Amino acid sequence: MAEHGLSRRGLLSGAAAGGAILAIGGLGEAAEAATTSGSLPTSVDVVVVGGGLSGLVAARKLVASGKKVLVLEARNRVGGRLLNHTLRNGSVIESGGAFVGPTQDHVLALAKELKVETFKEYVTGKNVYVSADGSTMKYTGTVPPDPLILADALLLQLRIDEMSKQVPVDAPWTAKRAAEWDTMTVDTWIRQNTLIPTVREVIKAYFQSAFGVDAEGISLLFLLWYIATAGNETNAGTFERSSGTPDAAQDSRFVGGSGLLPLRVASALGSRVALNAPVRKIKQTSTGVTVVSDRGTVTAKRVIVAIPPPLVLGIDWSPLLPPRRLQLMQRMPMGTLMKVDAVYATPFWRAKGLSGSGVLNSGVVRTVFDNCPADAKVGVLLAFVGGSSWQQCAMLPLAERRQLVLEGFAKVVGAEALNPVEYVEHDWTHERWTMGSPIATVQPGATVAYGSTIREPHGRVHWAGTETATYWSGYMDGAVRAGERAAAEVAKLV
Amino acid sequence: MAEHGLSRRGLLSGAAAGGAILAIGGLGEAAEAATTSGSLPTSVDVVVVGGGLSGLVAARKLVASGKKVLVLEARNRVGGRLLNHTLRNGSVIESGGAFVGPTQDHVLALAKELKVETFKEYVTGKNVYVSADGSTMKYTGTVPPDPLILADALLLQLRIDEMSKQVPVDAPWTAKRAAEWDTMTVDTWIRQNTLIPTVREVIKAYFQSAFGVDAEGISLLFLLWYIATAGNETNAGTFERSSGTPDAAQDSRFVGGSGLLPLRVASALGSRVALNAPVRKIKQTSTGVTVVSDRGTVTAKRVIVAIPPPLVLGIDWSPLLPPRRLQLMQRMPMGTLMKVDAVYATPFWRAKGLSGSGVLNSGVVRTVFDNCPADAKVGVLLAFVGGSSWQQCAMLPLAERRQLVLEGFAKVVGAEALNPVEYVEHDWTHERWTMGSPIATVQPGATVAYGSTIREPHGRVHWAGTETATYWSGYMDGAVRAGERAAAEVAKLV
Repeated sequence: MAEHGLSRRGLLSGAAAGGAILAIGGLGEAAEAATTSGSLPTSVDVVVVGGGLSGLVAARKLVASGKKVLVLEARNRVGGRLLNHTLRNGSVIESGGAFVGPTQDHVLALAKELKVETFKEYVTGKNVYVSADGSTMKYTGTVPPDPLILADALLLQLRIDEMSKQVPVDAPWTAKRAAEWDTMTVDTWIRQNTLIPTVREVIKAYFQSAFGVDAEGISLLFLLWYIATAGNETNAGTFERSSGTPDAAQDSRFVGGSGLLPLRVASALGSRVALNAPVRKIKQTSTGVTVVSDRGTVTAKRVIVAIPPPLVLGIDWSPLLPPRRLQLMQRMPMGTLMKVDAVYATPFWRAKGLSGSGVLNSGVVRTVFDNCPADAKVGVLLAFVGGSSWQQCAMLPLAERRQLVLEGFAKVVGAEALNPVEYVEHDWTHERWTMGSPIATVQPGATVAYGSTIREPHGRVHWAGTETATYWSGYMDGAVRAGERAAAEVAKLV
Repeated sequence: MAEHGLSRRGLLSGAAAGGAILAIGGLGEAAEAATTSGSLPTSVDVVVVGGGLSGLVAARKLVASGKKVLVLEARNRVGGRLLNHTLRNGSVIESGGAFVGPTQDHVLALAKELKVETFKEYVTGKNVYVSADGSTMKYTGTVPPDPLILADALLLQLRIDEMSKQVPVDAPWTAKRAAEWDTMTVDTWIRQNTLIPTVREVIKAYFQSAFGVDAEGISLLFLLWYIATAGNETNAGTFERSSGTPDAAQDSRFVGGSGLLPLRVASALGSRVALNAPVRKIKQTSTGVTVVSDRGTVTAKRVIVAIPPPLVLGIDWSPLLPPRRLQLMQRMPMGTLMKVDAVYATPFWRAKGLSGSGVLNSGVVRTVFDNCPADAKVGVLLAFVGGSSWQQCAMLPLAERRQLVLEGFAKVVGAEALNPVEYVEHDWTHERWTMGSPIATVQPGATVAYGSTIREPHGRVHWAGTETATYWSGYMDGAVRAGERAAAEVAKLV
């Protein structure tokens, strides 16, 4: 049985696992591989900093419009928070972002172009809700029908939806009650709106998975905005679409793994992608921008920065970032999250009439999903271990943590879960070039004070990355939208 | 009339203004100047990253115990958040930290050794309180006797003191109610404890000066801890000592400016201080640490890092920082603050029976102090412009902001304030190597989750800086204490 604490996959191993390397229509040339060493071009139209999905999409758009582009990626792989992982039987799962759903139009369109197919997340059968006392209850839908929580939980959801509708997705700082909502944590709001501790535990499961923090680390305004972005131009965001499974954020997954998206875009970009090229300095003059990376210095007319906010602080900016943006970047920490998967010979829970989904009110596992590959050749259960649950177990020896995780799975699907054939975990807090996961949250007060700088260009520097999106921020769709928007800004100017 | 927006002073200009360069007793050698270019030693016992007061004190202690030390400072000057500014008449004031008071035993002892004298902050006469409607009231003491606020304000203060006594200065995360207090912002707590908006405005004046943020950007637990640290081993911290003037945090100032402290320590360290040497990478092996700076690479047995928390994220760590510390550093943003001074031929307010101190409930100036040099050869008024007041005016043209500031001063001391002979401002959000001011705050939830890593060595790397202090964190005294503590940790090990 293979056991490892921190999986790391290279560009090519992921591509090999996932399928053929494709030339993208419109680029009109054969794909070469991304470069991993050697000299860089001295001058391009646009440098893109960060080879995650957002940066790659921006580059792809600019190449399609005839620009000379170079993507500088710090790691030895592309994809950022998207990362395929190949199991011992050859099946592919994801160590990072994976789910996709309706209204995520931009990532779905991209996937279609790249010939990456989707399949429905398995939701047949019953979900399992595990109370703090260990008693279980089977249910369907999103909210466990615990009589102790149901009325309150549904009322909270209604209120959240009603408030989030008042938050403009492109300018949450202009909401009429923005100042009020940004002064309090979500935890405070929840305590004001329910007296039932169990409700707070169930909500905690959502926060830990969605943000990698418990409710006290998030501004209420940020949460309302985040939920408002869970939609598109014709469908307002709702808590259900942001957090649910069928017809919502976890509706589907990609055949071959979401990692195929950045891999295929990068393959088409070929040698326009430079790996092992962390950017250290960005210097602007009146005529252009000089970007200093570990693989050399490149000048460009414009730069798109598509990296997690805390990493922006690690670049030596000349001139310095505008003060308000510098303050914002100090107030957008990444979440604390690991993703754990246990692999079984078969998805045995399906035969028992269980979906594999669960919500637990104690322990280190608070949310469970069926994470089998499309062909279900093996059974895989997934848990997000975030926030205070991460704190409970992340520092333990692997064997102890594994046991706690498997005990959580066993509460949901039965004792067979205690004996996986493979156990995989990926703790994103160990990632130098992400610094946490799944997303950056905005701290109390910071949206009102500094939020308006989020997409404001800094001279010749433009901003991408899912945190800059106005729909599905924090998701792959937001990454794609942000990359497209930044590319459109720049295309007019170079 | 000289007008400038952002003062920058070199090492030597400050020293020339403040007095002679002294050899420190015990080092037993003549002082050479800090180096500004050229090669560095290839190997020392201890590298200190950051030539602010804390790092310099750590270096000084280690040199005194016979260790070979090198201080690497990114700027072309030492002092960090301490920065003397010479007025046109030759008088010296501070653009950064300035005040000192009883129980700040360590910085007072250092000053005595360095022959830097103190003088009392001028508090003779009446303070002025300006209501939002513009009406004024004269008073003495710390809390304006507005009948609208007095009862509530005193009650809040009593409650804050009572709660802060329950917070251990060296482990706030262990306070019995830590989890509860860390889940809410200070703004939430204030709203729960007073219904009077004017009270919130007065408290805002304190927060903007003390932290460079309004009350919504701070965890209640952090505030309680911060107040608890405003004391020493025999005197518990209180809100009055943390925020007051006579016999409290603003009791006194240094003759010749607080900048003399780092300048004199640096002078004695001589060529052990390397300026223009930003540290880019810290790599640990089983035998030592390699520190890569813009002026070269140095190996050491141990390293002390004494820089603001957000800057820690900008160093390339190998191995990466422990996950919990990496998360903490993402949740300790620097405040948003500028310090503004208006200079007059004389301290004309004194003749009117005014102290020059004021609290205002509207406008960009919320707190005013008499900031005359010890000899009062010129009159100087000081305001801290932080948080939402900074946001109101920091982006305006200098002339417009100057006018707003002077109008604030005029409300406190009269119309003469509208015509200064000199106007000086220093906006710390423009400082690449500080990223804000006066201090880093800890965001809601982060003290309980990650606070315990604040002084935990990372292998051979130890931590100094005022944010790591357990008394007078955020002040010069905390910087000195933290430097001494880190030096003591390291001295045993090299």
